[in-house]
Amino acid sequence: MTDLERIPVRSPASVAVFRRILTHGPIGRVDIARATGLSQAMITKAVTPLMAAGFVEESEFTRTENGVGRPISPLAVVRNRTYLAGIKVTADRSYGVLTDLGADPLAQVEAGHANSGPDEVLRAMNQIARELRRRSPSGRLDGIGVAVSGDVDRAAGVVRDSPLLGWRSVPLRERLQALTGTPVTVENDVRALTLTENMFGAGRDAATLAVVTIGAGIGCGLFLNGRIVQGAHGVSGEIGHLPLAPGDLVCTCGRRGCVETVASTRAIVDRVRSAAGKAALTIDDVFDLARRGDPDAVAAFAAAGEMIGAALAALVNLVGPELVIIAGESVTEYDLYADRLRATFAEHAFGAAIDCDIVLTPHTFNDWARGAAVCVIEEMAGGSL
Amino acid sequence: MTDLERIPVRSPASVAVFRRILTHGPIGRVDIARATGLSQAMITKAVTPLMAAGFVEESEFTRTENGVGRPISPLAVVRNRTYLAGIKVTADRSYGVLTDLGADPLAQVEAGHANSGPDEVLRAMNQIARELRRRSPSGRLDGIGVAVSGDVDRAAGVVRDSPLLGWRSVPLRERLQALTGTPVTVENDVRALTLTENMFGAGRDAATLAVVTIGAGIGCGLFLNGRIVQGAHGVSGEIGHLPLAPGDLVCTCGRRGCVETVASTRAIVDRVRSAAGKAALTIDDVFDLARRGDPDAVAAFAAAGEMIGAALAALVNLVGPELVIIAGESVTEYDLYADRLRATFAEHAFGAAIDCDIVLTPHTFNDWARGAAVCVIEEMAGGSL
Ligand SMILES: [Zn+2]
Ligand SMILES: [Zn+2]
Repeated sequence: MTDLERIPVRSPASVAVFRRILTHGPIGRVDIARATGLSQAMITKAVTPLMAAGFVEESEFTRTENGVGRPISPLAVVRNRTYLAGIKVTADRSYGVLTDLGADPLAQVEAGHANSGPDEVLRAMNQIARELRRRSPSGRLDGIGVAVSGDVDRAAGVVRDSPLLGWRSVPLRERLQALTGTPVTVENDVRALTLTENMFGAGRDAATLAVVTIGAGIGCGLFLNGRIVQGAHGVSGEIGHLPLAPGDLVCTCGRRGCVETVASTRAIVDRVRSAAGKAALTIDDVFDLARRGDPDAVAAFAAAGEMIGAALAALVNLVGPELVIIAGESVTEYDLYADRLRATFAEHAFGAAIDCDIVLTPHTFNDWARGAAVCVIEEMAGGSL
Repeated sequence: MTDLERIPVRSPASVAVFRRILTHGPIGRVDIARATGLSQAMITKAVTPLMAAGFVEESEFTRTENGVGRPISPLAVVRNRTYLAGIKVTADRSYGVLTDLGADPLAQVEAGHANSGPDEVLRAMNQIARELRRRSPSGRLDGIGVAVSGDVDRAAGVVRDSPLLGWRSVPLRERLQALTGTPVTVENDVRALTLTENMFGAGRDAATLAVVTIGAGIGCGLFLNGRIVQGAHGVSGEIGHLPLAPGDLVCTCGRRGCVETVASTRAIVDRVRSAAGKAALTIDDVFDLARRGDPDAVAAFAAAGEMIGAALAALVNLVGPELVIIAGESVTEYDLYADRLRATFAEHAFGAAIDCDIVLTPHTFNDWARGAAVCVIEEMAGGSL
């Protein structure tokens, strides 16, 4: 197995230059200087090894500033330099994308698994990797990124605890590398999605960012002071487990009063089921009921909206991001609780924190998979982008 | 009036080198390289202009590694290069300290004010500055830092909203500069204290840090990803206004269910007063009652402890700091609620987040004032340390 190739970024200044070219290229040196605050000399010093190693090139599309003066050659990453796979694991299915060095998705593959045990999921991931390698223009995969929900030790490549998959201490990197012969990076799925939004998505120009995912679980990724927040012990962004709900409600995590006891998809369905006395109701039934004005269903979504609004206020009062992106599976049903969410957020947001932008971005599992590929690019740059 | 002198740090690498010398000096170049991950060449490049401008020197105390090899000359800041005043404003009194460039406190002065109006407070601050200048070994103050509770726009030098002082949109920097003829930096007091703890205090070797202050208000400063968290709109660390309390309790900020409605000094006193039917009880009376086992007072501190424990869990679940420092006026009475605080924290901390260290550090107002002086050193280094 080959080691993951390294992008020659040897200083924080060099990382900043590469990041700007990756996220905003083709881009002229003057614009890089403006965005990073670095001198032309420092930019040249950063770009020279990147060009020598073939990761950055002068774009063919030269242009002049305002049509006058000498033409400039904007810098861009060499897209066909590197091909990566990103895989997002869910309980019954894994989703893979092939991307180039610019994180553009080129192909998509998915594979079901009969159960969520590590053996079966690894089999599916290997199948996805094989198919994406076949479709890679270079015939190669230079790295594989895997996004898993739960407590992930990225440095060790170990999934420490994933309640959704029922995994504990699974050495995923080692096992998938052995199967595929390709370097593997493992990351928490919400942090991976946050990195993508920060570099290529709606958060591309936000200095600080929170991505809140709403669905089976409620998670959160934070980009603050130029980096994703990792948490000293691997835990961060657990907005679904803030103690904002009544203490008589027990969470799937075993604790009392977590946000998810009111606001997760499962909590909403459970509440409507027991109010209606119909244990067989599905989430789609509950959506239908709410749209038809059923009082129990409407009340369940209102309670969820209030809970998420209060959780967002807690987040914003503590860290004050410029932008909050709400993402995830349930986002298509966002209208069912958006009003209560915004009203409760406004009630509890402190002072100027209320000016925080809250936007809605629907994500597919392929977007999450792309986030996993972006983590590999980050890894190639020494772990910081 | 002279402008604030600038420390020649021209790149992120250079900031990292100066910061290391400031916080860990005298320190050898090898140790700087180990701590910052920078090459010897980059360290030399950073140190040369610092020495030329007289901010850094080779320490007289040369030593050899393990008693063998050629002697090394550790680097240290030139302490007598710069003298600074730090001032912490409270409602009825302001506290000043004189420090050198190493943030060592050299002298302390305080001045009362008849009210907390800007005119009266500015008069007291000017008096403090005059006295500290008189005591400065150089006869000069190179800068004045002021720490104020509330919403402070540091870049503009304006106190936007300080409920404690009753200030709104006070251009404090401009007014104090006009009075003193000295460059002024204004910062939120909790952020200033966090910077000091991060650079010179219990958090000196923690990669991430939260400082939680408990007293009249409950505040929080965060050091994450190498910087203090500022908040996109100037708001961050408002842990006292997380919506964790019952919604029927109205906070001094006007919102419902804030942590402070149960856990602030005032909330505790109010609760015991109304339970005992004695409107004249003071906070010291309430401390006495609790120590003597009065059930109402004991219950009030238990409720406060639970509320702060839940708020700390929310903080740790969201951002996962390595270390939480509990600071502030009420810390001397910490034993009255510590057990309930720790138990509730443990109940709600998610997964490995429970491994976060929580330590207690009593602070005097002079420590807060020193934090204001450290903000000036940061400002001299271009705003990032
Ligand atoms: Zn939970
Ligand atoms: Zn409040």
